[in-house]
Amino acid sequence: MSVISIRAAVLDLPRFPIVAIAEYGRAVGGVTPLWFGESDRNTPDFITEASIAALRGGHTFYQSSRGDPELRATIAHYMTGLYGATITEDRINITPSGISAIAVALQAVVEPGSNVVMVTPVWPNAGRYVTLLGAALREVALDRRNTGWSLDLDKLNDAIDGKTAALFLNSPNNPTGWMADDAAMEAVVALCRRRGIWLISDEVYTRLVYDRPVAPSALHFAEPDDRVLIINSFSKNWSMTGWRLGWLTSPPGCSGEMEKLCETQTGGAASFIQRAGITAIREGEAYLSGLIEDFRVSRDLVSQHLAACPGVNYAAPDAGFYAFFSVEGESDGLALARRLIDESRLGLAPGVAFGAGAEAYVRLCFASSRTVLSGALERLSAVLAG
Amino acid sequence: MSVISIRAAVLDLPRFPIVAIAEYGRAVGGVTPLWFGESDRNTPDFITEASIAALRGGHTFYQSSRGDPELRATIAHYMTGLYGATITEDRINITPSGISAIAVALQAVVEPGSNVVMVTPVWPNAGRYVTLLGAALREVALDRRNTGWSLDLDKLNDAIDGKTAALFLNSPNNPTGWMADDAAMEAVVALCRRRGIWLISDEVYTRLVYDRPVAPSALHFAEPDDRVLIINSFSKNWSMTGWRLGWLTSPPGCSGEMEKLCETQTGGAASFIQRAGITAIREGEAYLSGLIEDFRVSRDLVSQHLAACPGVNYAAPDAGFYAFFSVEGESDGLALARRLIDESRLGLAPGVAFGAGAEAYVRLCFASSRTVLSGALERLSAVLAG
Repeated sequence: MSVISIRAAVLDLPRFPIVAIAEYGRAVGGVTPLWFGESDRNTPDFITEASIAALRGGHTFYQSSRGDPELRATIAHYMTGLYGATITEDRINITPSGISAIAVALQAVVEPGSNVVMVTPVWPNAGRYVTLLGAALREVALDRRNTGWSLDLDKLNDAIDGKTAALFLNSPNNPTGWMADDAAMEAVVALCRRRGIWLISDEVYTRLVYDRPVAPSALHFAEPDDRVLIINSFSKNWSMTGWRLGWLTSPPGCSGEMEKLCETQTGGAASFIQRAGITAIREGEAYLSGLIEDFRVSRDLVSQHLAACPGVNYAAPDAGFYAFFSVEGESDGLALARRLIDESRLGLAPGVAFGAGAEAYVRLCFASSRTVLSGALERLSAVLAG
Repeated sequence: MSVISIRAAVLDLPRFPIVAIAEYGRAVGGVTPLWFGESDRNTPDFITEASIAALRGGHTFYQSSRGDPELRATIAHYMTGLYGATITEDRINITPSGISAIAVALQAVVEPGSNVVMVTPVWPNAGRYVTLLGAALREVALDRRNTGWSLDLDKLNDAIDGKTAALFLNSPNNPTGWMADDAAMEAVVALCRRRGIWLISDEVYTRLVYDRPVAPSALHFAEPDDRVLIINSFSKNWSMTGWRLGWLTSPPGCSGEMEKLCETQTGGAASFIQRAGITAIREGEAYLSGLIEDFRVSRDLVSQHLAACPGVNYAAPDAGFYAFFSVEGESDGLALARRLIDESRLGLAPGVAFGAGAEAYVRLCFASSRTVLSGALERLSAVLAG
């Protein structure tokens, strides 16, 4: 009775496939969980202690729904340094998660009846929110070539029409590990400019890159008047997944509009968590460098194991902490994920979670500590060899 | 260029009037801020220390987007005790603020093109979110009688039509201090049942009542199959405004649907904050009792001052921590709020923030410590006497 009068857009949304597989795994028991996008590392002490100092220092009151002014200034300075483009604090809105920044960005520009073009495979939240907003989702799949994943700009251009409100791009990409190079990112920014649509650029993995200091950002190529919204999060860089802190960067003059949405959607992030965010950015570079070096070793370990497995289709990621692979003869990644739980107590995310082009794949998060990862890889190799 | 392609529903939304008056006041300087709905008390130590223990204990990872299972169980037990209706934990979703719970509730049941009936004056976030969702807002004003504010059920019934998705009711009410008595709440639940619409009952002030242990709740009168969504928050009961923690109670069988919305909107509340929420509920009753007794003294102090001012139209609140009043000859509450800043450095919220029926009023939050409040009331009396 009650359920049936919930909106059809909500009822029709399938359960989150990663949550469903994790439940399956927990029921089986004893599974090594590499299905979520997080490390098993605790948040580093210097960040935790900054939050504790803020708690004891009375940062327990309402903060501006635009965000702590000092955090916004810190982020502006940080982004200016990263991208060589001057980013002022009046372009920054703090949000209680990257997810929340995506929701605000989509709410700001997506009308019911419009459509959003999305490059897939991709982490699914943004696409689900598009559907909830009453807009259509148009998936453009990355091509899987011998050398890795690649973006076909002509396919992207063809998917855009007069009802397209935005292009959603996640680079570095979760789950594939693909990263738009400078030329591709510049071309995407130019394409959105030419077609008169918004670019929502999810750049939460922008620092977790292996061969350059930072991934190419839409911000680097955008003119001040370009309709570009950038999504960032504290979760991955500083092992802060459970803190729920992110930010949205919008063009000059827009952040007051974004603030209206932040106010009505959440009212903002916790005050003492925002103080910890200041410390994470100001003092977190050494931690981040160490994390990346550690992930690099893990990535190479995963690559060695997968290279030794017959019939595995895998390209080592340029960025991020995911190995995304399929197995010859296995067209159903969900069945493969279930089999890995049953036969080796290994929990991976099924490709079906990530949209078009990903159905046969599974995603392994290699951010866990090496002991856990090594044990998991031994068991994975045994199943795939069998 | 960028701004103009933001959705008209966003651009058309006026700035939050309370934020605007606070900015005005900050520019003037030296203003006693009684405009927001928060106390100047720090969060009590036992809650802060619970969060610190959780931080140091490693509660820094993703939590289920439905919420910490132990917090959900704690809330279910707490609500069962409060309302004499058995509430099971599978009906509870944790959200990163009461605002966020409202947004999820509205997203769940409000289609574009439908309408939402809302009892006003009322704190404005819910109405703004209705507009953002592309639905129409139908305000039904409380009547202001000699004895105080009252709800006309016939007016409410007349406002509902075939396109009404929900009735939004905030009792105890911010800003008026009106509280639906048992008969009124039972009648509202019955009305929504009869008309086949959802009741979204914002009960964040349910514990801040002066003549009974808890305000009448829709939960107490609802049958299991009634379409009732209850909004709660940790902010007011335990001086946790800056923590951003709330919860949504939905009918049996619905919380999986609410979880989909929580996932796509925010991904949930911070893990260590949820642990502090457990402590707040389990160990916070003595603190809450003290707070209410303190607010009662403050309420009576405000009432004494306002009774001594000529031409003040004011009814002492049954609940909450707001004095809502108008002044004879002053039809513009915003002008009055500005004058109080200019002439007495006193920051109140203008009635225009709260919708139909409130334009002439101002809202004073009396949750501040008594020294601050007493000084503010002296200055207020001087202006109103002048």
